[in-house]
Formats: sequence, C-alpha cells, structure tokens
Amino acid sequence: MILKAKIIPIKTGKHTVIMNQSDADEIGLFEGDRVRIISKKSTVALVQISVGLIEKGEVGICMGVAEECMISDGDEVNLIPIPKPKSVEYIRKKLDGKKLSRDEIYEIVRDIVNDTLTEIELTTFVLSSHIHGMDFDEIEWLTRAMVETGDVLTFEGGTVVDKHSIGGVPGNKISLIVVPVVASAGLLIPKTSSRAITSASGTADTMEVLANVNLSIEEIKEITERVGGVIAWTGATNIAPADDKIIKVEYPLAIDPRPQLLASVMAKKAAVGAKDVVIDIPVGAGSKVPDVEVGKSLANDFVELGRRLGLNVTCALTYGGQPIGRAVGPALEAWEALKALEEKRGAKSLIEKALGIAGIIFEIAGKALNGYEYAKSIFESGKALEKFKQIVEAQGGNPNVKSDDIQIGDKTYDFVAQIDGAVANVMNERIVKIARAAGAPKDKGAGVLLFKKGGSHVKKGDVLFRIYAEKEWKLDKAIEIAMREPPIIVSGMILERYPSYRFMQ
Amino acid sequence: MILKAKIIPIKTGKHTVIMNQSDADEIGLFEGDRVRIISKKSTVALVQISVGLIEKGEVGICMGVAEECMISDGDEVNLIPIPKPKSVEYIRKKLDGKKLSRDEIYEIVRDIVNDTLTEIELTTFVLSSHIHGMDFDEIEWLTRAMVETGDVLTFEGGTVVDKHSIGGVPGNKISLIVVPVVASAGLLIPKTSSRAITSASGTADTMEVLANVNLSIEEIKEITERVGGVIAWTGATNIAPADDKIIKVEYPLAIDPRPQLLASVMAKKAAVGAKDVVIDIPVGAGSKVPDVEVGKSLANDFVELGRRLGLNVTCALTYGGQPIGRAVGPALEAWEALKALEEKRGAKSLIEKALGIAGIIFEIAGKALNGYEYAKSIFESGKALEKFKQIVEAQGGNPNVKSDDIQIGDKTYDFVAQIDGAVANVMNERIVKIARAAGAPKDKGAGVLLFKKGGSHVKKGDVLFRIYAEKEWKLDKAIEIAMREPPIIVSGMILERYPSYRFMQ
Repeated sequence: MILKAKIIPIKTGKHTVIMNQSDADEIGLFEGDRVRIISKKSTVALVQISVGLIEKGEVGICMGVAEECMISDGDEVNLIPIPKPKSVEYIRKKLDGKKLSRDEIYEIVRDIVNDTLTEIELTTFVLSSHIHGMDFDEIEWLTRAMVETGDVLTFEGGTVVDKHSIGGVPGNKISLIVVPVVASAGLLIPKTSSRAITSASGTADTMEVLANVNLSIEEIKEITERVGGVIAWTGATNIAPADDKIIKVEYPLAIDPRPQLLASVMAKKAAVGAKDVVIDIPVGAGSKVPDVEVGKSLANDFVELGRRLGLNVTCALTYGGQPIGRAVGPALEAWEALKALEEKRGAKSLIEKALGIAGIIFEIAGKALNGYEYAKSIFESGKALEKFKQIVEAQGGNPNVKSDDIQIGDKTYDFVAQIDGAVANVMNERIVKIARAAGAPKDKGAGVLLFKKGGSHVKKGDVLFRIYAEKEWKLDKAIEIAMREPPIIVSGMILERYPSYRFMQ
Repeated sequence: MILKAKIIPIKTGKHTVIMNQSDADEIGLFEGDRVRIISKKSTVALVQISVGLIEKGEVGICMGVAEECMISDGDEVNLIPIPKPKSVEYIRKKLDGKKLSRDEIYEIVRDIVNDTLTEIELTTFVLSSHIHGMDFDEIEWLTRAMVETGDVLTFEGGTVVDKHSIGGVPGNKISLIVVPVVASAGLLIPKTSSRAITSASGTADTMEVLANVNLSIEEIKEITERVGGVIAWTGATNIAPADDKIIKVEYPLAIDPRPQLLASVMAKKAAVGAKDVVIDIPVGAGSKVPDVEVGKSLANDFVELGRRLGLNVTCALTYGGQPIGRAVGPALEAWEALKALEEKRGAKSLIEKALGIAGIIFEIAGKALNGYEYAKSIFESGKALEKFKQIVEAQGGNPNVKSDDIQIGDKTYDFVAQIDGAVANVMNERIVKIARAAGAPKDKGAGVLLFKKGGSHVKKGDVLFRIYAEKEWKLDKAIEIAMREPPIIVSGMILERYPSYRFMQ
C-alpha cells in the first residue's frame, strides 16, 4: 500500500507508524501488527491506528523510522504487512506453561534487544516467566542469550573477579571499598553497576560524584588492565542490553521474577569475563529477601547457574534489615566510603561487610586462606585508598579529592528523638522515600544521614537523622514525608497517624 | 514542575505527555508513571520519555490532552506526579493468584474504561486472569462491572430475548433469520453484534450490506419497541465498553480467557435487558471449541453466570466443523440469508440451525412447546421476510431490496476438483484466510462461495468453491493462498506442498 509520509516529530524506543483506520482496514491491519516500510531504505515498524490527524492516504512516520529509511515529509512510502515474528509464538508457548527450547529463548531475547516486540508481547514474556517460572535449562539459555546479544569483555591474562549485590538495602556503597581492596591485591575487577531505579543511589550514581562512570567497554577493559579495577555504569555499555528492556516491564509492576533476576545478574558478570564471583544477598525486613530460607534458596540458584556458565560463584547472605553505614544518597555515600578509606575505619556495618565480601573473593580466587584478614590488612595499610585514587583518576576524576571536599546539599533538617528510649527499627523503604523526596539520586547532594541505628540508646533531643537537599522545596517535601512516616522508630513511638490530618466537618 | 507545552499532532486512545529525560529525573518520574497536568483545565496522563526532540523545560502534549485541558503550543503547564491508581495494586494481587473482591474488580474495570491503565498494567490483568483463572464470584462481578460502566437498555413492557454466538465458525449469518423469526412472534430482540476481528464477516458487517448498523442506544430501543427487533453494531453504542479494550490485548496474543469470554458475552446480553438468552457454541475442528466436553463445560458456565445475573440462559452446542451455509463474506452472507427468507428454503446447515436457535428462544420464553415447529411455521409463512424488511427499513435500508440486487465482487475465480471423490474436509481457518485475502470484511463484495461441503461426492472438474473479490490484486493474493493451502479436501488429495515452490540451485 502506497501512502504519503507525514513525519511525526517524536522519537520513541520502538519503531512506529501511524495509519488511518480506513487504510488499515483496507489491508487488514490492526494496532500492534507489523509492516515493512519501503522507501530509500526499508525497516519494520509496529502499526498504531490514529483516531485523528492522519488522513486516508497518509501515514505518520516517527522520527526513528524516518531517519533509518531516509524518509522526508511528503515522500511516498510502501507499506507491506508482515507476519508476527516467530518469537511471539514462543512467548505464547511460555504463556501456556510450556518449557522453551534454547533456540526459542535466543530468538525471544534477540527480538527484545532489537525492539521488535510490542509492549503487550514483552509483558507477556515477563509475566509468563514470572507466573510459570523457568527451569535451569531455560535460565541458563536466557542468561547466555543475554550475554551473547551484547558486548563481552575478554582479558588476556590475570584473574578476573567480580561482585554483585541483588540490591534492596539502602546505603550499600561497599563497592567503593571492595573494588580498590581487591584490585590492590593484583586481581582484576571490572565492576559495572546500575543507577538507582527505585533506590536513593545506585553504585554508579555514587561513584559518579567522584569520577566519570559513562565508560565504553573498551575503556573498562583498558582501565581494568592498567589499574586493576573500575567502577562503571552498565548502562553506558552494551552489556546484556536485554536486561534494561525487561526491567522496564518489571518496574511498573514492582515484580522481580527469579529467572530474570538470576539471568540479569549473572549475564552481566559473565559478560565482563569474571571467573570468581561473589553475590551479596541482603536479607531482612524491607529488603528484597525477607528471610534466610528464601536467601539460601536464591543462593543455591546463583551457584548452580554459575556452575552451568563456568563461573565460580559464592553467595553472601548479609544483613539487610537497615541501611549499610550511615549515609544514603549519592554524595553522602561517596563521602562515607572515601572517609572510611582515608581514616581506615568507619561504620561497622560498612567496613565489616566490605572486607567480608572482599575476603570471600580472595578465598575463592585462591589469593588467601583467611580472606577477611587479608582484606583488612590491605584496607588498613592505606593501599586501598591509593588504589581508589588511581581508579578515580583513570576514570577522569580528581585523585586528590578529600572526603570533606565532597559537596553535600546545604539545605538540611534534623529530626530529634521526642522521648528517651532505644531505636527499635530503622525502616529501609521510608529512608529511601525521604532521600528520594529530598532529590536523590538526581540531586547528588540530597539524602539522609543516620545518627542512630537499630539498638542505639537515645535521649530526648538527640538527633536521629538529618535530611540533606539542594533545593528548599524538595527539603520541605522530604520533611513532610518524614513527619508522616517516621523512618526511625524509638520504642514506644506511634508508628503512623492515619489520616494524617484532622478534617473539619 | 512548570514546563512549556509543545503540542504533538497525534491522538491516541491514551492520555500521554512526553518529557525530557532530565526533567523526568528531576521529579523522579519513569516511563509509565502518571502526572496531573494543570493548565486552564486539568487531567491525568501517562509519562513517556523522549529520546530526542523534547528539550529540557518542554513537555510534549498529545492532542487529546491538549484539547481536554485547552493547552496551546507554548503555554506553561504544571506537572505534578501522582501515585498509581489503586487498581494497579489489585492487578498485582491477581498476578499473585489471589481472589479479587467485588470492589477491586469494579475499580479495575472503571480504570480500563477510563483509559487510566498503561498497556503493561492492562496486559497484566488480562494475562493473570487467563493463567490463574477467576472463580464465579469474580466472573459475576466482572460481568456486572462491565455492564454498569456502560449504557444499559430497559424496556417497559414485552418479553426481551436475545441470542449470541461465541463465534469461531465462518458463514454464521443465522442472526439475519433468527431475529425476524423471533420478532414476528411478538418478542423483543435488541440484537447487538460485533464486526469481524479475525473472521471474514461479523454479523454487523453482514447486516451493514443491507442497512445502517451504527445505531445509538436510543435508536436500538426505539426500533426494537416499534418493529420487535434490530441488528446493530455493539461498537457504535457504549454497551460494555471495557470489552473492546480487553480484546485489544487478547487479539495480538490470540488468547480468549474463559472469564473474559463469559463476561464479554453476558455483559452485552444483560446490558440490553434480555431475560431469556440462547448462546450458540459452535463445536468442532477449526472452531473455538474443539470437542463436546469442552463445549458442555463452557455451557455450564454460561448457565451458572446467567443464573447469578438473573438471566434465563440455554446453550446450544452446534456443529462448527465447517462453515454454516455456503457463503462466507459480508455481501455473500447477506445474499444467502435474504435469499433463504425469500425462498423459504436454503442450505440445511443454515436453515436448521437458525430455526433451531429461534425455537429454543420460543421454548424458554414460554412462547411455544415445540419451538422449532413454531419457528418453521413463521419462516415458511413469509412473515419472517416481512419482518426482516421492516427491520431493514427501520435501520435506514431499502425494504424492497431483493437478494439478487446485492452487489457481489465481480472478480471471481473457480477452484475445481482435480479428481473424483468425496469431500473429506472443509477447513474453516483456510476458508477465512482466503476470504480475508480477497478483501473481506473491508470489501463487502469479497468472500468465498462453497459449492461442495463435507460429504459431497464430486467429479473431476466440478467447482468446489468460488472466490469473489472487488479488486484484482486481492483476488490474485487469495488465489495464491488457496493454491498453497486448499480449503476443501477431496479424499486422496495432497493436503499441502512444502515448500510451495521448487527452487533452482
């Protein structure tokens, strides 16, 4: 069908063309069907039906398609209906609860990466895997397909190790300590990390306070080979690109299907060429894993998946019931980590955990018998600080930066204890909500600093936590939320008042 | 957040605004999140993130939103993030396999009707119901919610009856006979029907050959009260509007979850005020219900759902293994039905079925003890033809139209038997595929006319079927498909040749 192109000044992830109802009927097309567009060049796009503005004989061409096919406004283009890709049939199969073959999973992942699936089709794949689950064959194939449809790193020499946290606990800035400790011992640790989606700061957001994290795969390789470690943002590379697209479906539904969780983590580790890998699984109320039993079962799955992929995986179940360290928010977390490296000490929950994880890496990589002591000796020798500065410099940051140079938001508000008592609870989700309301992760200086954590004794008037913000209106919003939903509970307090305000009748 | 409006000349079903990544980060918004837009008026829209073309400080406003809030290009608008609707939480609950309450289902259906759910959320609701199923309470609430979120009809006097086919068998034009037969007996039958989605002709497409089917709910009531019956298109009314939006998710996945099927059919019957209802369930290879056991179980569900809604439901399991009558395609089917009314006879599969269904209506409405004989007497008396003409006239058609006046496509092609034998199989899906390729339902005159059906003896050279089309290129396409996938199988034939063509090496 020959139609006149009308360029639509919008660029979205998907290739889309917009048709008039009558033309769509003429060639039997429905919304979500696919067409091949032929002009100077040719591509495949999904059909949307416009309820106005596209006349009969016209076709709306979104910018992405226009650029790819070199179409200008008013050009004649040819639209040919084409069948759904094979992968849709395989997704239907998974919807029916059947096991997928290796080739079927590869086909689905390729189409996810190439954006050829509609939102309905991709959602169906994610939900079907969520509800029906996947067996280990399928999870292995999914992981391999995710690796192979993206960039991969190979190192000629050296022992390549890595760590990953499944997330869910605020203030988890341990990578800024683990990476330099491990690299100081001569191991290679090309750590890629994510930015915050629902948290207050991802490791990439935190590291970005001190250095550039938008590194290409070549830069990651070069820096790792040169200084032993890197802390980069996965999103700037093309490592396991299917992952981001799958997460876009999971996020609005607040689901984290285990097959995708396993594949997502392990694909990233396999893609950077790591052989010995430690997975941090925070366990506790308000984290992703509610109890140790679930944590163990997940750990078993990681180890088994690692075995299938040829990776030596050990999991650490860590305490995730309250934030790690005291700081939550990009600049505050960078400050806390750098301070710890400078002073060779810091909050126990941060130092013990970081050195514990580094220690396991040393043990499984055959570097030390008592990994924790080895890690501690590196940390306390000052070598870790030196290494961290080398990494910062290699990533384009200032190696001479001191923790106290780090800019924290200058709008602050302290919450103080209203009664004497002990801290019964520090609630992860509420801390994150407040830090995000204050501006984190976008405003680097925004966040929450804890002065008291679970078990601390407090006196009336003691500061419990401080909110930092860069903008007054965000501080106000964060204060309002913190008042309504206090994140630190001193025993005897009222948890929440509902409704928050009394209304006049 | 105050942004400058940039009007995007596109109108889609959903309310959408398009933001720059940086602004979205600033207030913590992700794709699929919701904002309230405040200008001269205010509304809620879903956020899309543009990968270009929307500058920082700008917001793309789609036409629907622009019109509703009276926003012009360059206006300042205020965007305030708002939480997900409650219904998303309920959809999550269904995803986890839990039973929904009455209020939860009503909330979901209201949000479906108001287009406040994203495609991911709506897909999740449909798939979760598909995989986990719904119990009868939930199905009843779903049906009631679908009725109550749309228009409903009430008649002051008279016995209101209705019929519905769950579809799946081609050529099922029986409503054009059932409605006038039933109306002739003084019953009220406000029949609303669908257009083809995947079939060659829906009842609305067929009736449209003879009269206007785009009737308002008031016109349906008025005509039914005046002449006893109507054959209208549901889509022109606001009857059970949730149904169409749900079907938009089911269609691309080719699924038909039983809870939605039951609710979809029964909501439409309840909405028009029918008390006695016959459901036609075609059973057989190539229809929606493969065997009688499945048909019975579905029939039980319809009867039970009817009981809960206060409707007297009887199901007829009918033979659906090959087309009903001989004609497939809008004009051909209208021709076959009108011809049967004129001549008081026709293909057995058409006449027997139509009178059988009408007969059951008469029996359950207490109009006759032997419903079939009663229906037959009306049909043979010529009253049904007279009534049909009244209905056509009431719907703005020409009451004096003769079957032979109906315009059929003038491009034709006959397929003839290559051998002597008997017809072993007439394949529904292939017939539909050919008719659609020939142009049905968009080209009213396109379709397939069968000269031989299952069991017929044929001699080499006998015409098996004829393809009709309005356009030469569509006829060619249909012929090509029919050659590759013959729809009428004479015993001894090769079913299919694969690959279709021999390639030179």
